Amino acid sequence: MSGTVPTAAPVLPIRGRLRPLGLDQVRITGGFWAERQSINAAATLPHIEHWLERAGWIGNFDLAVQGDLSRDRRGREFSDSEIYKFLEAMAWEIGRTGDAELESRFRAIVRRVAAAQQADGYVNTRFGRPGQAPRWSDLEWGHELYCVGHLLQAAVARARTRPGADDGLFEVARRAADNVCETFGPDGIDGLCGHPEIETALVEFARVTGDDRYLTQAALFVDRRGHGRLSDVEFGREYFQDERPVREATVLRGHAVRANYLAAGVADVAVELKDASLLDAVRTQWSNGVARRTYVTGGQGSRHQDEAFGEDWVLPPDRAYSETCAGVGSVMLAWRLLLADGDPRYADLIERTLFNVVSTSPSADGRSFFYTNTLHRRELGTLPDADRPSLRAAASLRAPWFEVSCCPTNVARTLASLSAYVATSDDEGLQLHQYLPGTVEHRLPDGRDLCVSIATDYPHGEQVRVRIESDDDRPWSLSLRVPGWAAQGATLTVDGDTRPVGPGFATESRTWRRGDEIVLSLPMTPRFTYPDARIDTVRGCVAVEHGPLVLALESVDVPGVETVDELRVDTSQPPRLVHGRVTVRCRRVHSRDHDWPYRADAVESAPVVGEDLDEVALVEYHDWANRGPSTMRVWLPTAR
Amino acid sequence: MSGTVPTAAPVLPIRGRLRPLGLDQVRITGGFWAERQSINAAATLPHIEHWLERAGWIGNFDLAVQGDLSRDRRGREFSDSEIYKFLEAMAWEIGRTGDAELESRFRAIVRRVAAAQQADGYVNTRFGRPGQAPRWSDLEWGHELYCVGHLLQAAVARARTRPGADDGLFEVARRAADNVCETFGPDGIDGLCGHPEIETALVEFARVTGDDRYLTQAALFVDRRGHGRLSDVEFGREYFQDERPVREATVLRGHAVRANYLAAGVADVAVELKDASLLDAVRTQWSNGVARRTYVTGGQGSRHQDEAFGEDWVLPPDRAYSETCAGVGSVMLAWRLLLADGDPRYADLIERTLFNVVSTSPSADGRSFFYTNTLHRRELGTLPDADRPSLRAAASLRAPWFEVSCCPTNVARTLASLSAYVATSDDEGLQLHQYLPGTVEHRLPDGRDLCVSIATDYPHGEQVRVRIESDDDRPWSLSLRVPGWAAQGATLTVDGDTRPVGPGFATESRTWRRGDEIVLSLPMTPRFTYPDARIDTVRGCVAVEHGPLVLALESVDVPGVETVDELRVDTSQPPRLVHGRVTVRCRRVHSRDHDWPYRADAVESAPVVGEDLDEVALVEYHDWANRGPSTMRVWLPTAR
Repeated sequence: MSGTVPTAAPVLPIRGRLRPLGLDQVRITGGFWAERQSINAAATLPHIEHWLERAGWIGNFDLAVQGDLSRDRRGREFSDSEIYKFLEAMAWEIGRTGDAELESRFRAIVRRVAAAQQADGYVNTRFGRPGQAPRWSDLEWGHELYCVGHLLQAAVARARTRPGADDGLFEVARRAADNVCETFGPDGIDGLCGHPEIETALVEFARVTGDDRYLTQAALFVDRRGHGRLSDVEFGREYFQDERPVREATVLRGHAVRANYLAAGVADVAVELKDASLLDAVRTQWSNGVARRTYVTGGQGSRHQDEAFGEDWVLPPDRAYSETCAGVGSVMLAWRLLLADGDPRYADLIERTLFNVVSTSPSADGRSFFYTNTLHRRELGTLPDADRPSLRAAASLRAPWFEVSCCPTNVARTLASLSAYVATSDDEGLQLHQYLPGTVEHRLPDGRDLCVSIATDYPHGEQVRVRIESDDDRPWSLSLRVPGWAAQGATLTVDGDTRPVGPGFATESRTWRRGDEIVLSLPMTPRFTYPDARIDTVRGCVAVEHGPLVLALESVDVPGVETVDELRVDTSQPPRLVHGRVTVRCRRVHSRDHDWPYRADAVESAPVVGEDLDEVALVEYHDWANRGPSTMRVWLPTAR
Repeated sequence: MSGTVPTAAPVLPIRGRLRPLGLDQVRITGGFWAERQSINAAATLPHIEHWLERAGWIGNFDLAVQGDLSRDRRGREFSDSEIYKFLEAMAWEIGRTGDAELESRFRAIVRRVAAAQQADGYVNTRFGRPGQAPRWSDLEWGHELYCVGHLLQAAVARARTRPGADDGLFEVARRAADNVCETFGPDGIDGLCGHPEIETALVEFARVTGDDRYLTQAALFVDRRGHGRLSDVEFGREYFQDERPVREATVLRGHAVRANYLAAGVADVAVELKDASLLDAVRTQWSNGVARRTYVTGGQGSRHQDEAFGEDWVLPPDRAYSETCAGVGSVMLAWRLLLADGDPRYADLIERTLFNVVSTSPSADGRSFFYTNTLHRRELGTLPDADRPSLRAAASLRAPWFEVSCCPTNVARTLASLSAYVATSDDEGLQLHQYLPGTVEHRLPDGRDLCVSIATDYPHGEQVRVRIESDDDRPWSLSLRVPGWAAQGATLTVDGDTRPVGPGFATESRTWRRGDEIVLSLPMTPRFTYPDARIDTVRGCVAVEHGPLVLALESVDVPGVETVDELRVDTSQPPRLVHGRVTVRCRRVHSRDHDWPYRADAVESAPVVGEDLDEVALVEYHDWANRGPSTMRVWLPTAR
């Protein structure tokens, strides 16, 4: 896109309405996301490496070389993928900062992985060696192709940030990808992976190599899914989207991470192959998934049992699964659809999900994580041990590591590559999708170099000031996304003229001069949000939102109240902003205890309304559980 | 209790406020339960035998004898228990009807089981033979002691209905029980079973044999639980109630079947050992479990993930697990507490659970079953195949059999022994807990023979007419339970005098003459029921109840309405009884579809209120899904 230097971005489609800008073009210089990137680099990456070593998951590659794998291997069947996701995170981080020490750690791990690769390119520490189950003997649960997919994504990240680096990762990936194509090609095993991921990875590997063989293989995997090739497991074939062909599905369903990863890969295949009906199927699945099966946080997955989407409108806050990785997968999918279609609704969901799912997972210090992101915590429950991996996915506080520890590495790679999800270009100019202090540079196809800088306190400040930093005699267009939540009161000011703008792109096409400024002003008044009446579990409740942020009521903010469930919010007074915190007027209630909680008398079942608590301060949802154990609600029952 | 002939009842405590009457003393002659017992005998028992043979689970015992077990064994680790539960069901049925053909089938199966027992008394087809895992090598999941427990319960049922029968079952059970005591005694393995059941079974076996060794072993198992002897599994040790000592727990928790079976066994141990504090712990657990963690149907278990109780107030109707077996376990527990304490609240829960959980599981024809009993079905979903076992626990229609098929045999043994849960005695007379057409006979400790007959259309008719069928010169007391739901309007008529009675026992002590009649009249007006406000998932909804029956809105009763979720009930008009069916006034609503289901405008989020549908007929919950696929709700949103 920018001459011979590849764009440092995870997704580079051959066509589409918008073209992504990469880490080399978008710099984040401060604010909400810079702080998270800094914590990610300083705390999370070393934390992950510590645990990957301690858990023995990197050591598995050494054991493979030593021949002790069948006896001493540690970790679940997909643990190799965590090393690959960590390598991907490091690759983006090195691309972002050029950290030399990180570069050397990166190379050391790549060497250990490379040493374990077998002669024919197969690399996996769980299968295929003496004393282990044979290769590809458990396509439902073995995650072998899934692991290869993450290896390819790491290699792609590296190739786009350090093209031609002599670390050997790309060669490992190429041999693994070739092994997959040889094994699962038209004349090979007629199978597919229980956990999608190889599809999107192969397409990107085709893009980075220019070799369509990988694209063809990805398309074959997509075609194979949905015909019952995978066994019928306890959760049903819907769990891995194998119950119906991809083209026939009309909504995201089954395991929420699998669903998003698959749909991302399908979008990639559809774009590359100009398969309009296939892309349309993904659009429909996304639209219905977002309209009926997504939490207000952007979180997806309402079932603990199978980490899956529920049926339409099944969105219980207290049993929300909303896995961090499903949030990452949702960003992956929405970004691909945004590039394909240019519809800002996709960027709306990305923003919501980044602020309220991806950034909720890590603690303020970047060393513990939520695996699931519930919207209602009723009890403090069993608190995690800061020095032990958590067996279970849900806890009242974040845990340092998990037996299934997919989320920390997914957060790390997303944060390290975050600037690649901020801006795009088309032949006319630039589009800004996410707002943060920083700079965006881009060379148009006709060779003109554009540059803008952005100053904003977003998500807290009202104004996004975009300053033109390049001079050009010919006009080009600058588009700013007006978020869907800013339906009333947003304005755009250009050259002293202010005009109201509504959700979608606010576009200004003109001959820009260095120093020109365009100011998007957003209505940063905190607001009540009402759920669709079909979501039974939050009937009679409101959420409170502030810009793109979902807020929550956390017990540590209400001294003297035993549980947040004893509060009712008075919706006759809108939420207010008081000294930088959003408050709502609440009333305390006292529940009546009965032997049997179902009564013929409505009054007996209702709580006793107690004193007015006046204003109660809410917490930004992503920041809850950073002040010790607490109970928490996003959806607040209203006072009658 | 009745001289030398044992009472044909599953539970015969040595002490307690009330003494149970057995199948030999209580005859059910018609009505709701007679019909279910008849279907159970004619359809369900042969259906179960067919599937036990077809699935190979009885055949496993033959394979054990042939030595082919390690290669050819079929079924899950607990499949032996289904044979034992089936034997128990047959034993009660033979005791009830004396069916000679059933007797011969019973003996044939006992012979196959007996042949597989090993020399030291151990009997299990899953463990301990060449090529199998060693005995007791998987106490968390192996279910070996659980299986022995059900073997003992079958033997107890047989011993109390055919004492001294020469079928050999009792000897098999005794040798298995002795093997357990030798293996797990004070000097044996310091372990316990991941699925409680052996505890209650050993106590009953002690009662039937008079040998306290079994009681001592049961008490040892109870003491061992709650100290982390079982491994920490994914669901946490709470799953099998091993996270804290039995005496310290204050509420039913973890896996709902395990919780109830354990508490039943603990109650048995506490009663036998006069351990007042232990019994008090069980009472507290039951009271809190019922007050905060039980569905309006009596169903228990709100989590699919681990088939477990949720935290307090977590009772989502659409994700209700409410496993049939948890209902059976709840009846077991409440019955033991009723016998110990004489508190009619226990009988209230038994009634609710029998009508709305246990009788909901089997289809009208007795050949398919609900494993889970949801309170809200939103979609038709994947319908079960009438000729294949269902892999999954939840379906829109009942399934003929399951991979884990605990529920059909549990329903069968409960229905066959149902008359043992109807009436009790104390030194003063009789107590009637459940109402059905039938007769109750009893010999008081002083030798007097009492007999009453009961005529009623319960649960549909208002009147329960109890006629004295014996003559005696000395007074004795007759107590009739006034259900908790009959808080207003119940009356008792004796000898022409009518007086109001409230929930609890209505007791009449007098010298009764043959032909005397006592009539309990219950307020059979259908009623709205309101949930405690802490149950977030049903806020703004009402249920409709009619006597002890929970009603439901089923889509097959509302032609032209796509889903029951499109209806709102008008609570300003009470439910009415029209031609034998309960109706409510409903209004149809049309939901507004949006791209994003959370809106700043409350009106936009609310549905459009449509035409009045007038009266909509409800179905008795236990009878839903007997007319083809449908959607269904127990909790109905109210019209504003």
